[in-house]
Amino acid sequence: MSVRDDVKVLDATIRDGGLCNNFEFTDEFVTALYKANVKSGVDYMEFGYKASKHLFDPSKFGKWKFCSEEDLRSIVGDNVSDMKIAVMADVGRCDFKTDFLAKSESVIDFVRVACYIHQIPAAVEMIEYLHRLGYETSCNIMAVSQASTEQIEDALDMLCSSSVDIIYVVDSYGSLYPENAAALARKYIDYAEKAGKKVGFHAHNNQNLAFANTIETMSYGVSYLDATAMGMGRGAGNCAMELLLGFLKNPKFSLYSLLTFIENYMVPLRETGVVWGYDLQYMFTGQLNRHPKEAMAFTAEHRSDYCEFYKSLLDNF
Amino acid sequence: MSVRDDVKVLDATIRDGGLCNNFEFTDEFVTALYKANVKSGVDYMEFGYKASKHLFDPSKFGKWKFCSEEDLRSIVGDNVSDMKIAVMADVGRCDFKTDFLAKSESVIDFVRVACYIHQIPAAVEMIEYLHRLGYETSCNIMAVSQASTEQIEDALDMLCSSSVDIIYVVDSYGSLYPENAAALARKYIDYAEKAGKKVGFHAHNNQNLAFANTIETMSYGVSYLDATAMGMGRGAGNCAMELLLGFLKNPKFSLYSLLTFIENYMVPLRETGVVWGYDLQYMFTGQLNRHPKEAMAFTAEHRSDYCEFYKSLLDNF
Repeated sequence: MSVRDDVKVLDATIRDGGLCNNFEFTDEFVTALYKANVKSGVDYMEFGYKASKHLFDPSKFGKWKFCSEEDLRSIVGDNVSDMKIAVMADVGRCDFKTDFLAKSESVIDFVRVACYIHQIPAAVEMIEYLHRLGYETSCNIMAVSQASTEQIEDALDMLCSSSVDIIYVVDSYGSLYPENAAALARKYIDYAEKAGKKVGFHAHNNQNLAFANTIETMSYGVSYLDATAMGMGRGAGNCAMELLLGFLKNPKFSLYSLLTFIENYMVPLRETGVVWGYDLQYMFTGQLNRHPKEAMAFTAEHRSDYCEFYKSLLDNF
Repeated sequence: MSVRDDVKVLDATIRDGGLCNNFEFTDEFVTALYKANVKSGVDYMEFGYKASKHLFDPSKFGKWKFCSEEDLRSIVGDNVSDMKIAVMADVGRCDFKTDFLAKSESVIDFVRVACYIHQIPAAVEMIEYLHRLGYETSCNIMAVSQASTEQIEDALDMLCSSSVDIIYVVDSYGSLYPENAAALARKYIDYAEKAGKKVGFHAHNNQNLAFANTIETMSYGVSYLDATAMGMGRGAGNCAMELLLGFLKNPKFSLYSLLTFIENYMVPLRETGVVWGYDLQYMFTGQLNRHPKEAMAFTAEHRSDYCEFYKSLLDNF
């Protein structure tokens, strides 16, 4: 019954969920989620990406692909809540030297730098730049299930020598079983503790293990936990915030405010045809430790020939 | 990468899934599942209940509520496969002294005696009777999340002095987190090992933890694992067999045969309107450690006022 005061919950609904609807959420939706998150005791809300407008045509995406200061402030004003505002920036897909203001001028608190493991040197460059601007930073090492132990240890060494605040285990392919997630979490924590850093976990639900893996890694000391309303996120989606808040014992978290948002906004959103969540095709790619892109195409084509699809994955190793 | 040769997988699709469609499966469906389970390496297939025809009117249920010898043999013949045939018998809801043949005359191999914890003495009477008839038996102690430690230890003492072969942890309310499921599993195993018995686990998916809890308890030595095709089962359903077979490393298990069945029979069954699986209303009852009956009624009424429903559960503690 004890409470882990170090646990921080981050809502990634707009950012990871935006991958399901091209970031085209209404202002009403984002505002309602912001208010629900504040009331529910969520620690951070991630609004989207800081993507390069040179690489991505702003006319082709919703505004949360870019998270301009103006658009953020149109929702949160000066954010007079206790909840912090986060954005994600992908290594190689953002213009970090021009698109971030000094922290003192921005409503953004936390910048999550996402990269693949071979991009760690570039991530560290970004992290140092953003740190000097005054932001809290994380490094979210994606697709870690395909990295070797040596690569992971090299990456952790570099990050632990950097200014990064939090290092995330990211199960991009939803392929980790709890025992694997726990082993990675323990390794990250071994490195991070010595360097005075924290560790986070970002799950995907390909094998219906997003929530289980999140609380498993938490039990080993992971303290930054990502979740989304109704598990909305690319492909099989993420850890559902309603499951996580129901599990956490800290009375600062309140499930009911989130439920109001889910009933009034998430259920209707799903009824408009936006698709995410566990299904067989995502289970296949998770079990095979593969990028979900083929499963996402299977979903988009409304296919139901699961056996043919499964065989095509096996043929294509 | 090592293989746990002691692990036995039991398919409970017809029995627990029958609670979703009044046991009204076609013979073609049941035959196809039987063949798929044999090909997939499943160790046991549970065909349904041996319910009392005095308490339950046979004209009001599909035949798998009763599992007559004749109906079983119409599907499996003499069952010349390596897979064993199981049925469930509820304490107080079966006529075990009249409805079971001697094992030598029956195609049934395994009788699972289901009871609540206060019914253990009656369960032991049934188990001894069925053991004398020659059957393998288990005791499936339901709703264990609401039993006290003393009750559980008393029950385990009595069962360990009986002829029962397997003792099941049954998470009827889907309320156990992996740490709770593991603690129960360890306790059951402590008792069972000394008495030369095995332990099983039967999950429900109210908190999307059915698969996670199943493999968690397995890691502590549970060896009888229940699962169903696509997780079909009452309310939020069970551990999905396709997830479990994808996880198990023993090459005797084959996912592909099951996938063929799922594509040809389970997906169409779901399209006819039979409903099961994780949803918010089941999460609520799981989080609150409650019987899912109110959530099942909410589902049957096609309600979507989740907040009102949640409040009614809180008012009604």
